[in-house]
Amino acid sequence: RPVQRILWDPIQAEKSGYKHFMLKEIFEQPRAIRDTTLGRISLDTGKVYLSEMKITEDDFRNATKINIAACGTSWHAATAGKFMIERLARVPVEVDYASEYRYRDPIADPSALGLLITQSGETADTIAAQREMVAKGMKTIAICNVVGAMIAREAHGTIYTHAGPEIGVASTKAFTAQLVALFLFAVHLAQKRETISTEESSRLLESLSLLPGKVEEILRTVDSVCEQLAKTYSTARDFLFLGRGIHYPIALEGALKLKEISYIHAEGYPAGEMKHGPNALIDETLPVVVLATKDNDNRDSRLRYEKTLSNIQEVTARSGKVIAVAIEGDEEIKQLVDHVLYVPSAPELLLPVLEVVPLQLLAYHIAVRRGCDVDQPRNLAKSVTVE
Amino acid sequence: RPVQRILWDPIQAEKSGYKHFMLKEIFEQPRAIRDTTLGRISLDTGKVYLSEMKITEDDFRNATKINIAACGTSWHAATAGKFMIERLARVPVEVDYASEYRYRDPIADPSALGLLITQSGETADTIAAQREMVAKGMKTIAICNVVGAMIAREAHGTIYTHAGPEIGVASTKAFTAQLVALFLFAVHLAQKRETISTEESSRLLESLSLLPGKVEEILRTVDSVCEQLAKTYSTARDFLFLGRGIHYPIALEGALKLKEISYIHAEGYPAGEMKHGPNALIDETLPVVVLATKDNDNRDSRLRYEKTLSNIQEVTARSGKVIAVAIEGDEEIKQLVDHVLYVPSAPELLLPVLEVVPLQLLAYHIAVRRGCDVDQPRNLAKSVTVE
Repeated sequence: RPVQRILWDPIQAEKSGYKHFMLKEIFEQPRAIRDTTLGRISLDTGKVYLSEMKITEDDFRNATKINIAACGTSWHAATAGKFMIERLARVPVEVDYASEYRYRDPIADPSALGLLITQSGETADTIAAQREMVAKGMKTIAICNVVGAMIAREAHGTIYTHAGPEIGVASTKAFTAQLVALFLFAVHLAQKRETISTEESSRLLESLSLLPGKVEEILRTVDSVCEQLAKTYSTARDFLFLGRGIHYPIALEGALKLKEISYIHAEGYPAGEMKHGPNALIDETLPVVVLATKDNDNRDSRLRYEKTLSNIQEVTARSGKVIAVAIEGDEEIKQLVDHVLYVPSAPELLLPVLEVVPLQLLAYHIAVRRGCDVDQPRNLAKSVTVE
Repeated sequence: RPVQRILWDPIQAEKSGYKHFMLKEIFEQPRAIRDTTLGRISLDTGKVYLSEMKITEDDFRNATKINIAACGTSWHAATAGKFMIERLARVPVEVDYASEYRYRDPIADPSALGLLITQSGETADTIAAQREMVAKGMKTIAICNVVGAMIAREAHGTIYTHAGPEIGVASTKAFTAQLVALFLFAVHLAQKRETISTEESSRLLESLSLLPGKVEEILRTVDSVCEQLAKTYSTARDFLFLGRGIHYPIALEGALKLKEISYIHAEGYPAGEMKHGPNALIDETLPVVVLATKDNDNRDSRLRYEKTLSNIQEVTARSGKVIAVAIEGDEEIKQLVDHVLYVPSAPELLLPVLEVVPLQLLAYHIAVRRGCDVDQPRNLAKSVTVE
């Protein structure tokens, strides 16, 4: 019997049948979220457990401020984290670009806590920001995805994201895992500072535990819709992404994904700023992606939603094309926009984890149609270990 | 003798021979800066005098924080102001988009001072942010250009910018006057808090008094260079503007000017963030404007300049076209970039007033070549009195 030669492509095997690492990693998000949550919450007690901390209960209780430094996608997670921490723990948060923090002689308070976010744990600017914080007497906590990375070794505590190795240069599952880690940190801090009740905490952690199933649902229903949308919009020259509050950093992240892998000039804006300049860009050739989700149990969220609808009408009145990300069952918005990408409902602080998924898929399918090298976009490296 | 009919166009007359209000207003900046400074500084004593304040010496001395809210161009002034205030008075500053501040349930400290910046004094979002601050027990100071405007009537103190009426929708002279007002506020606060010496203060005010002459010099030398550059770059589809530290908000402002009046998609970025995503956009069709000024008397400024030179090399290595704004006499940079726009030297905190002028002129000449309605760009209103 003749020898059979099996053609074996180890790279393709690692992609588990997906065409690109990025797509595989987008689809791994339910597991990344579950693994980042696992063993850290108790639904019975409503408590968050963060291990490996050389930070005392008093450090958490007496922190006057949280200073976060990060770059790129991690900076977007940080900016969403500001909303989580301020809303739940009522501690002021300042978010810096790591490359700026290290060179701006920041006013640092030794009783503030430093938080550093980096997927690789080796980002040069973020490590430099950490050293600046430590030099000013602050304790630091790292959020990173690689066990034993430099940033973790120098931190007083680490919340690892258990997203698994991320190969695609454009970060996806590491980002959603960072959002989960920040949410855990915010609830933990709020518990130590007694700014939320056990009931509230239990309710939030219960909602957190439901996220993986909800992301699965989005992947099942929205992927083909994004593939269709890509046919229409892959020839666009520019894109805008709009959001308010915690949805603004997600608009920035959606724009960055598109920019990184499709080379389309996409830009994120707080929706309320449009009338102060960017409106001038709008014409019938400009697709505008609007994060128009809401948490019906939250009065402020409903109010921001109403304001966002007004912003949508400003865009359509000027013939811009609107793609909205909205909550399942929102029929009202269908009348106002060209396309809707639906996600399941969740408490507002967790919505970013859901609403970024359609934006990742949209960027992915547009880049594929444009024939771009999705996993290795031009001019970019996976982790930036030089300045 | 027959009656002579004189054709008199009152609008043209008001433009004093300039083709557009915007150009006239760009050229009025030396006077706007002088008038905003006039009567408020003493070069003998090194003191700043701010009148019409219902804010006590103790309020200034004990302020735990400065919260600034503004929109659009005023938000860029605010972001530059953060650097001025933190550097000189060592008080932490938080800058918010007014449209975000009002809806985000901010953590407000009654011992913080609120600062509102709006040219018209009637911007709906900014007035709403002011009311939110007052409701939370804070005293507020307005920086506005219209005497008796709503924001001034509701404030505990006002620093008027004396830029005179601004007709062009894209703000120019009001912006540089806002920078001057913020600088005066920062020096005043630093004096009350005794964080700068009389010598330092005198030196800074002396430099401030020299700005009008320096802006005149830029207008004389750089206008025709920008007109030439417009011939090459008016067909560009996209632009990037980069800066570090206090120069980053000026990069944002340069991008906004171009966006508003030429409809070119221009975006501002902190220079150090490029490698975390936006680098993917760079190719031989992309002009990149880099703020590469430095204050030779300031070690940190020299360091940021060196880092900015590295960023420039990243752009040119990827065939991007670089237009640098640099300090007169900087011959080194000429070797690295395609074009240099020179401005006179000044202490770093005052450089924004100088370096924004070439960016205004560049946007203006590009828009004129593209045949855009410079004074009344599409989709925009001069003051946004609705939400």
